[in-house]
Amino acid sequence: MSFSLSLKVRDYECDMQGIVNNAIYQHYLEHAPHEYLLSHGLSFAEMTREGIVIVLVRAELDYRKSLQAGDEFQVTVKAARPTPVRLVFEQSILHEQDAPTILEARIICTAVNAVGSPYFPEQLADLIDG
Amino acid sequence: MSFSLSLKVRDYECDMQGIVNNAIYQHYLEHAPHEYLLSHGLSFAEMTREGIVIVLVRAELDYRKSLQAGDEFQVTVKAARPTPVRLVFEQSILHEQDAPTILEARIICTAVNAVGSPYFPEQLADLIDG
Amino acid sequence: MSFSLSLKVRDYECDMQGIVNNAIYQHYLEHAPHEYLLSHGLSFAEMTREGIVIVLVRAELDYRKSLQAGDEFQVTVKAARPTPVRLVFEQSILHEQDAPTILEARIICTAVNAVGSPYFPEQLADLIDG
Amino acid sequence: MSFSLSLKVRDYECDMQGIVNNAIYQHYLEHAPHEYLLSHGLSFAEMTREGIVIVLVRAELDYRKSLQAGDEFQVTVKAARPTPVRLVFEQSILHEQDAPTILEARIICTAVNAVGSPYFPEQLADLIDG
Repeated sequence: MSFSLSLKVRDYECDMQGIVNNAIYQHYLEHAPHEYLLSHGLSFAEMTREGIVIVLVRAELDYRKSLQAGDEFQVTVKAARPTPVRLVFEQSILHEQDAPTILEARIICTAVNAVGSPYFPEQLADLIDG
Repeated sequence: MSFSLSLKVRDYECDMQGIVNNAIYQHYLEHAPHEYLLSHGLSFAEMTREGIVIVLVRAELDYRKSLQAGDEFQVTVKAARPTPVRLVFEQSILHEQDAPTILEARIICTAVNAVGSPYFPEQLADLIDG
Repeated sequence: MSFSLSLKVRDYECDMQGIVNNAIYQHYLEHAPHEYLLSHGLSFAEMTREGIVIVLVRAELDYRKSLQAGDEFQVTVKAARPTPVRLVFEQSILHEQDAPTILEARIICTAVNAVGSPYFPEQLADLIDG
Repeated sequence: MSFSLSLKVRDYECDMQGIVNNAIYQHYLEHAPHEYLLSHGLSFAEMTREGIVIVLVRAELDYRKSLQAGDEFQVTVKAARPTPVRLVFEQSILHEQDAPTILEARIICTAVNAVGSPYFPEQLADLIDG
């Protein structure tokens, strides 16, 4: 299964180089999976309030090109479960106009329980390809 | 003339209180006027590259209610020119669902030239009510 | 009583104009009072966990000059209680080198209880001049 | 050669989970190398104004533990030049108190010239171990 979110660069996301600041991409890469969850009826905020703590384990980001003020772009998300307790979001950021890849990322998460042990919240099983 | 922009809270904009962080509203209040400019064919980024430096002189923000994760909202913008060199954006943030006012703001700007004197860039005259 | 915090601009806080983005000042104006609280043994994070919800009611910010990459500056904070339920932080941002005022702000807060009524948390009384 | 920067979590950097938001670490990992440059008399802002465009090529971040409100921490930076045109910052974020590793990162950069070709700005050679 895959998911795609359309966004547009906001001027305040650009830094003194006049392009989107590198850290801002991680905001995009957090927002898109949360919207993906919502499209499956799952709210990250609600899960947080219920004590389900999903944490980032590793992020790999390959920056190919820069986004500039006003650029429209898409964040595509694919979810996978490479190990029993890991949830991986394979993501790409694509420029909407002519579709060169801006960034490719691999975001590896897990959930941790009250004693700090990793587990896979069963609510998230729906996100994974059948 | 007035302008309205529809946005949605992103989870990363919320702080430890579980609501949108106070500073983030100023991002919304910067983004909406920039989109307003674009709707008149004016790009803030392009003006910046051309050396037109628009600066904030004073911001007054009245916080009425909080936005939460996932809330959809509208930012409305009205522009005025109360003095020859000042551009004012009267803005409201409204919750889309049932429309209580979230925030009201008055954003007072000017442009400064190379020697630091304030002026009104004539390109912006179109934003003002006739 | 007054309090002063020394900070330094970080490059990622600057936007495409090459100066600190306007919204970032509100981060500084939030951080300095939280450090002021800590200097009185009060943790905003702890109060949040205990259910004490301090909210911003109104912010007035007068922008005088811009901060640039690498600038060192001071945020000064004075607390007042102009009405029984309001806590006001009068703040200035001063450039450390030669001390022209960068920004002056008046940050008006209150706490809200479980039914949304404003009150003044008695822990904060120590912040106010005797 | 290595470099270390002491920082403290600011409350606005924490998100609804009550811990530092994942993207904020990339701000820390940008700020520390910029301070490292400054300790060698090199200003990222000045290089940007002079047209030297340093870009991020790849970021690998291993998140081990979370930082919380008020935590003091250190960012350590080591620079390397694994290929002629690449500058790599090996970075760790360590909790100051008792020193468990919070995060380990590998930040791979290059500079790009006016036609988009990568190169190594000779000013940066000093950062590399002899």
